Amino acid sequence: MSLESPPKILNVRTIATSRLFEIEAVDLCFSNGVEMVFERLKGNAAGAVLVVPITPQQEVVLIREYACGTERYELGLPKGRIEDGEACLIAANRELMEEAGFGAERLAYLAELTSAPTYSGQRTHVVIVTDLYSARLAGDEPEPMDVVLWPLADIDRLALEGHCSEARSIAALYMARACLATPSGPTWTIHAKENIHE
Amino acid sequence: MSLESPPKILNVRTIATSRLFEIEAVDLCFSNGVEMVFERLKGNAAGAVLVVPITPQQEVVLIREYACGTERYELGLPKGRIEDGEACLIAANRELMEEAGFGAERLAYLAELTSAPTYSGQRTHVVIVTDLYSARLAGDEPEPMDVVLWPLADIDRLALEGHCSEARSIAALYMARACLATPSGPTWTIHAKENIHE
Repeated sequence: MSLESPPKILNVRTIATSRLFEIEAVDLCFSNGVEMVFERLKGNAAGAVLVVPITPQQEVVLIREYACGTERYELGLPKGRIEDGEACLIAANRELMEEAGFGAERLAYLAELTSAPTYSGQRTHVVIVTDLYSARLAGDEPEPMDVVLWPLADIDRLALEGHCSEARSIAALYMARACLATPSGPTWTIHAKENIHE
Repeated sequence: MSLESPPKILNVRTIATSRLFEIEAVDLCFSNGVEMVFERLKGNAAGAVLVVPITPQQEVVLIREYACGTERYELGLPKGRIEDGEACLIAANRELMEEAGFGAERLAYLAELTSAPTYSGQRTHVVIVTDLYSARLAGDEPEPMDVVLWPLADIDRLALEGHCSEARSIAALYMARACLATPSGPTWTIHAKENIHE
């Protein structure tokens, strides 16, 4: 029922902004006549990219960085905003170079994740990458990040023991492992090695 | 290095608020002397609860609701804010009754998830529940939600084919399946059946 008659968006207005965030109020009218005002965070148009880098030893490359939201260091996959006009796989390689000091020659788009979609329009594109090589790009990080290798076979322990708490990283790791285990596997794109040494 | 000397929080101030959101600016000084201003969303103190309800047939109870952030219907686990002073397992049962029309007699706390912890202090507590019975509580939903049963054995397809995109739901489903498959399993708490028929 509801799928066939989604609510009508009567009005959208920005009610608060900061450097990073934009909050919108949305007037909705549902098919049963109920009208409600929702608030949501506007996501950036291009979305974010989350990278699942796999070594030849079947380890995942994780980074540990200070998270201001939870006020502690968090272990998770390399990630960041896709810049305007930047292709998703290019963004994946850039973030991997900035945060972990690796480039990748084989990349495959996996899936799009949302985060609390009732309240947020943010979309995160998950990319699996392999055939890693050393390459570091300067990012805007305030301090170097620790790089941690974790066996892909052992992600249950990573998640269930709380070594990683970030929902997108945990979801992407399980999904990548499942996709890599299918007979067809991911659909790889080959990128030439970039000579970057900053 | 960084783990042993986390950044100092020099100042926290609220820079924007709305009915649902509060944005803070945080002045940080890292151990290498770098000072930066971060912005973050303040999470509600009690956090949110995400419920993994499992039927005797090893199906997961999912709900489909309109998500204002992505402007489409999204399939995911029942979830909601924990109210001030409310115990986590009580909140899990309340949200399950409001959104899916079930109560649960056996509940187990699984883990805490974060969402984009660099930018958000939100914490989501994951609870596995079984021994379901019919019980509906009126919630604040604008229209009834569709309830969808999905085989726990088939969550790869749920996630990889994009039927569910919400990172916390996908992470929680895989973690619950992994925990249920361990010899010790979850640590269950028994709640008496509540007689609720609204």
